[in-house]
Amino acid sequence: MITEGLKGRHFLRLQDFSKLEIESMLELGLQLKADNTMRRLHDDLLPRRTLFMMFFNPSLRTRNSFEAGIFQLGGHAHFLEPSATRLPTLEGEDLGYASERISDVSRVLSRMGDALSIRILGDVVDWEYDKAFRIIQEFANNSKVPVINMEDNIYHPCQGMADAMALWELFGKDLKGRKIGVSWTWGSSPKKPIAPHHDFMYVASLFGADVVFARPPEMRIDPEIEAQVKSNAEVNGGSFQVVENMEDACENADVVYAKNYVCLDLLPPVTSEPQKDEMMKLFDNYKGWIADEKRMNLAKPTAQYMHCLPCERGAEVSDAVLDGPWGEACYNEAENRLHAQKGVMAAIIP
Amino acid sequence: MITEGLKGRHFLRLQDFSKLEIESMLELGLQLKADNTMRRLHDDLLPRRTLFMMFFNPSLRTRNSFEAGIFQLGGHAHFLEPSATRLPTLEGEDLGYASERISDVSRVLSRMGDALSIRILGDVVDWEYDKAFRIIQEFANNSKVPVINMEDNIYHPCQGMADAMALWELFGKDLKGRKIGVSWTWGSSPKKPIAPHHDFMYVASLFGADVVFARPPEMRIDPEIEAQVKSNAEVNGGSFQVVENMEDACENADVVYAKNYVCLDLLPPVTSEPQKDEMMKLFDNYKGWIADEKRMNLAKPTAQYMHCLPCERGAEVSDAVLDGPWGEACYNEAENRLHAQKGVMAAIIP
Amino acid sequence: MITEGLKGRHFLRLQDFSKLEIESMLELGLQLKADNTMRRLHDDLLPRRTLFMMFFNPSLRTRNSFEAGIFQLGGHAHFLEPSATRLPTLEGEDLGYASERISDVSRVLSRMGDALSIRILGDVVDWEYDKAFRIIQEFANNSKVPVINMEDNIYHPCQGMADAMALWELFGKDLKGRKIGVSWTWGSSPKKPIAPHHDFMYVASLFGADVVFARPPEMRIDPEIEAQVKSNAEVNGGSFQVVENMEDACENADVVYAKNYVCLDLLPPVTSEPQKDEMMKLFDNYKGWIADEKRMNLAKPTAQYMHCLPCERGAEVSDAVLDGPWGEACYNEAENRLHAQKGVMAAIIP
Repeated sequence: MITEGLKGRHFLRLQDFSKLEIESMLELGLQLKADNTMRRLHDDLLPRRTLFMMFFNPSLRTRNSFEAGIFQLGGHAHFLEPSATRLPTLEGEDLGYASERISDVSRVLSRMGDALSIRILGDVVDWEYDKAFRIIQEFANNSKVPVINMEDNIYHPCQGMADAMALWELFGKDLKGRKIGVSWTWGSSPKKPIAPHHDFMYVASLFGADVVFARPPEMRIDPEIEAQVKSNAEVNGGSFQVVENMEDACENADVVYAKNYVCLDLLPPVTSEPQKDEMMKLFDNYKGWIADEKRMNLAKPTAQYMHCLPCERGAEVSDAVLDGPWGEACYNEAENRLHAQKGVMAAIIP
Repeated sequence: MITEGLKGRHFLRLQDFSKLEIESMLELGLQLKADNTMRRLHDDLLPRRTLFMMFFNPSLRTRNSFEAGIFQLGGHAHFLEPSATRLPTLEGEDLGYASERISDVSRVLSRMGDALSIRILGDVVDWEYDKAFRIIQEFANNSKVPVINMEDNIYHPCQGMADAMALWELFGKDLKGRKIGVSWTWGSSPKKPIAPHHDFMYVASLFGADVVFARPPEMRIDPEIEAQVKSNAEVNGGSFQVVENMEDACENADVVYAKNYVCLDLLPPVTSEPQKDEMMKLFDNYKGWIADEKRMNLAKPTAQYMHCLPCERGAEVSDAVLDGPWGEACYNEAENRLHAQKGVMAAIIP
Repeated sequence: MITEGLKGRHFLRLQDFSKLEIESMLELGLQLKADNTMRRLHDDLLPRRTLFMMFFNPSLRTRNSFEAGIFQLGGHAHFLEPSATRLPTLEGEDLGYASERISDVSRVLSRMGDALSIRILGDVVDWEYDKAFRIIQEFANNSKVPVINMEDNIYHPCQGMADAMALWELFGKDLKGRKIGVSWTWGSSPKKPIAPHHDFMYVASLFGADVVFARPPEMRIDPEIEAQVKSNAEVNGGSFQVVENMEDACENADVVYAKNYVCLDLLPPVTSEPQKDEMMKLFDNYKGWIADEKRMNLAKPTAQYMHCLPCERGAEVSDAVLDGPWGEACYNEAENRLHAQKGVMAAIIP
């Protein structure tokens, strides 16, 4: 376990941390989960620290896991929506008295509290692919305290940590020899983020799994992330393979991770505007892509289904899968948001 | 006092608890009220516990009493509005990525915290009479932690507990021989819930009062509740009588509880849609129904006026009644939300 | 330092407190700031106290400094927006079930917690000059616990306290002989409050500074406040002078405080409706009024720029001023909201 070098760091993406650092934060999280199970209080870890949570998008798991998590550590989270403040803007996008420059928001908040966390993605940035991450970076560049990424269009590192913790709980921290089937599924809206897929495959490969990723040919992920996943697999004794039907991902899998995500080739910067109608037409060519009993029965008898939630029942996954024995890991994954993030906060917030 | 059997229970309606259980929770609440008055901290009772409060409707008393209450007990409440998450829906009412199935919301939250509380009624469920309660039951059925009903179209058990505490403070816990006048009044909107009337009469009869209930013939309450009130009265040494003018309820009363509520016969399932214009026409036939000085002077000299608040001054009750000596119990009743709910939470949250 | 007479007081405007009382609260605030810097917890000061914060207008600094501040003192703040409750109204402005009389809201909340704070100004009261303050007074008149003014159209006493603390940190608590240049600047909207100017000049003069105030002839402040500032200057060894160009205010100044504010002669009660177009026309006659490098170079070499924030960069102040050596005091001023308000709360909340 790393015992120094984490305090004061921003948590913007998994790629900024070494495998050993990620492991260390996960181990802290697991220890705090055990404490919680035994009702051993741990509010001496971040006493009276304040976390400012800025949400530009709705949230259930992220908001509640951060708010409950910092509270268990002895601190308090402020739930900040753009409507309650003025809109934080980048230089050149100011709206007079209706907005405030991000550099100022970040400087001010970082003098009043101990950490900032930000969720911004999708419609809020007109689906401009890297803009949300640039906004989060702008907060970080102007903050004296750690900034935590609560999801942008590219990265969802807190979800990745919770995913990793759920995988560790199933298999131990060495995933070598485990087949992790990952898939796109159909969904009824052109709005579901791709970041969870990115970070799920990032951590599965980091811990040495054999990742088999199924998606229609038009549904590529970010090539830079794909290269990182490949490299992770090579370095850590796993493998990475892309296939074009769900069955290949499910067959004999230990885990099936399957959910819908947007088509990057129908969004900026590839197109000038989001092509939402086009995207739904494209999706509808692949309407049969759903995690159902038939496909789960291709996997190992002990296989688990994973999804970051919220899921669209009947579209991405059938009720029978989610409510049956396959679904347990999915709710563990959600619960682990709480514990994994407590590990991160305990590590980085001074 | 009951010393076991309460931990881990849902608090969905008073009817789910025995008289002794209700008394026990009220006694705990009174003890915590005394502690509070003496500034004796009691934050060791639910240390670092998290309460998720979901509000589908506006709230002043309920939200603030729960948030302050769990805080005094050592915990923390999350204030959740549907706009900040996605809409929790029953099966068959999903809205794709804009909603999330209640079973999933409840499973996830119950793994991240220690209790859930929900307010849902009125417009939000298109006034479908039992739908809000079914939604709350759906949360409870999928939760591993206690679920608390913060008001639906039928029940408002937390209000009932606060009402009971206010009555106890006036008369002691035995209400035998006390006349409690209860009345409908005119109001300027077809929106005021009937649940407070239900639970007020439930507790008044449970503790043996003589309840005289005045309402226009068209303004019936739920017949099932009425039967329970009658039965409570019989079992506990009180009485229950329905009359058709306010004066009969007020005359010689120890307490007058008077407020507006909707007409159940102009709402689903009796009608297919809420008949709001019809309801206002009906109300206007009874515009003189207001708790004013003249009527309060019919009551005992020491009589108190009660209302769950918010009240419509000049419509339901005159300023002279509320701001004069009759009005004190009304604000005690509101304050007791805090203490009664602390008693409930301390009893049921593990 | 005053050691009694503050507990239980409302904090509605600086004018309600003696200089010694204001000094005492600032000294408490500075001590708590030092505690915070050394990470010495001070949550024993207001343990388990509840602050109800009512915001009718957006807020970044005010909300976050109060919420973090009461938390550091051991308490908890409820963030209340009108949309989540019903609209609190004065007598005669009731909206049936959509509103609740302020006297009732205040009575109820003051029985459930330990302090109330309110922000209300601008559009919310249709710019009726003294209405917002009357509303805050109505809360205070009906509250059993201290009420804190978080800004109305006339007063922003919490900002004034933070400004004073920032000035003390620069010069010590005696400002005699210090030239404080104060100015109006251009801004792109007819919406910026004048209250911060009022209270900045109130405290600068209270501690004996030489205040030189520059504004276009049409941009007068409240004559009652101006008289108080003059009187403060006379009593405390300073001076007060009004000029009509920014250069006179900046020249040889120790501090330049410059921001936009609305024209009182184009708002009620002078006009019947806010004259927003007229106001922008008027503003545009003075578009060159900005705190830029050229003007800051007229000031002392060590001069600091101050602004309550949020500022409109490029309109009220240039990036070079804010991001350069002149800007530090501005962020200290913002941070001091936290510490100054903690001093106030620790002093007045029982």
